Amino acid sequence: MKILMIGTTGAIGKQVLKELQGRKHEVITAGRNSGHMRVDITDSASIEKLYQTVGNIDAVVVTAGSSPMKSFQQLQESDVMEAIHSKLMGQVNVVLKGQHYLNDKGSFTLTSGILADEPARGTVAGAVVSGAVNSFVVGAATELQRGLRINVVSPGLAENSADDIGHLFPGFNPVPMRRLINAYLRSVEGVITGQVIRVHE
Amino acid sequence: MKILMIGTTGAIGKQVLKELQGRKHEVITAGRNSGHMRVDITDSASIEKLYQTVGNIDAVVVTAGSSPMKSFQQLQESDVMEAIHSKLMGQVNVVLKGQHYLNDKGSFTLTSGILADEPARGTVAGAVVSGAVNSFVVGAATELQRGLRINVVSPGLAENSADDIGHLFPGFNPVPMRRLINAYLRSVEGVITGQVIRVHE
Ligand SMILES: NC(=O)c1ccc[n+]([C@@H]2O[C@H](COP(=O)([O-])OP(=O)(O)OC[C@H]3O[C@@H](n4cnc5c(N)ncnc54)[C@H](OP(=O)(O)O)[C@@H]3O)[C@@H](O)[C@H]2O)c1
Ligand SMILES: NC(=O)c1ccc[n+]([C@@H]2O[C@H](COP(=O)([O-])OP(=O)(O)OC[C@H]3O[C@@H](n4cnc5c(N)ncnc54)[C@H](OP(=O)(O)O)[C@@H]3O)[C@@H](O)[C@H]2O)c1
Repeated sequence: MKILMIGTTGAIGKQVLKELQGRKHEVITAGRNSGHMRVDITDSASIEKLYQTVGNIDAVVVTAGSSPMKSFQQLQESDVMEAIHSKLMGQVNVVLKGQHYLNDKGSFTLTSGILADEPARGTVAGAVVSGAVNSFVVGAATELQRGLRINVVSPGLAENSADDIGHLFPGFNPVPMRRLINAYLRSVEGVITGQVIRVHE
Repeated sequence: MKILMIGTTGAIGKQVLKELQGRKHEVITAGRNSGHMRVDITDSASIEKLYQTVGNIDAVVVTAGSSPMKSFQQLQESDVMEAIHSKLMGQVNVVLKGQHYLNDKGSFTLTSGILADEPARGTVAGAVVSGAVNSFVVGAATELQRGLRINVVSPGLAENSADDIGHLFPGFNPVPMRRLINAYLRSVEGVITGQVIRVHE
């Protein structure tokens, strides 16, 4: 398959990339400052340009997007909007635009996160966008045409992020990278659609 | 209790209002073009002004917010953003601002909808914002101070909306208004917090 992958230098993305390359897919990588192609998913014109340039895509995988951490008392409208522009609308626009470019029977695989279901301190902005992406995928799957599929992986705390950010998520069990990678694989190479693949321990 | 209620002329809001008034609460009503007070929840300055004017509030109930219906092929970024500014950020801002104004042990009761869980045709924008509001409430409940509570009612198709919009939701069982009203009541007068009260049939 020819796979477009956005966010391939991050904790999760780099592992998924390695797996997809190992399985002999042709992977075109993209990021703001990394990968074969430049894209900023907060800017939908930049997404459109990416699709116009790459072409002939069978699968899109997004492992990009961020949301600020801040106590609820300090949280501002602008913090939530930052997460919305990045992780929510970034991914939504990848699909809204991409539905017109992907090959028949192509697939989208997005990324949400455990915070939609299980709160941690200072993560309400992250919860909002992950909950939104989950419901987006459930809805979008029913309306995509030409056999296009869409799923979202909801990672728990990734094992290779635990040293860096684990102290912010007390009691969250780190998720083995193999289980996370498999979730992306099940979406890209499998048959499912409209699934929120929760990889929580 | 002194209750601030936003959106009291809608299909759901007017019934909830009647019940709360019947139970001898003092209800201050607000809307863009209706109620005691003018507020547009898409404008956070307007929300702040409302709190400054009303004061001494024990409970806030929001039964306002909208999202456009459009096929996924036609859906634009601007449609999703419209829903985000109204139903999502409108309600988020009511809480972000309100946490600094409500009386100790006060409560917020928001409104999402069944579309977060159960898709219908052309309702992805609605799914996005309802899923987001649900996760917002689960997260926010863990961080609110001074005994403040927060819940969200997720209505199915309201019985008194079925004649108007039921044809857009084939097979969705209309929800008796009594069950819906009870969900709001359980949040306002009860003890729960962090609950997504799904009133689906
Ligand atoms: N790591 C975890 O434990 C964990 C747990 C749950 C959920 N998640 C979610 O999984 C996703 C990936 O997480 P991660 O930890 O792997 O992230 P990360 O380490 O921060 O990496 C982010 C990746 O996305 C790219 N990127 C960021 N913003 C972008 C933008 N606006 N446009 C295009 N590319 C962008 C970055 O490359 P450039 O800098 O070159 O753009 C980088 O390759 C995020 O949505 C995160 O919330 C992660
Ligand atoms: N009806 C259903 O079957 C159903 C099912 C599931 C979910 N819901 C959800 O329940 C909520 C209420 O639905 P509904 O059918 O009762 O709505 P509705 O009939 O459209 O009424 C909306 C109410 O909110 C007020 N409002 C709208 N936008 C506002 C804004 N920007 N700022 C302040 N007030 C605003 C309106 O008054 P003004 O015009 O004066 O502002 C009106 O009182 C919505 O979030 C809807 O998505 C409804």
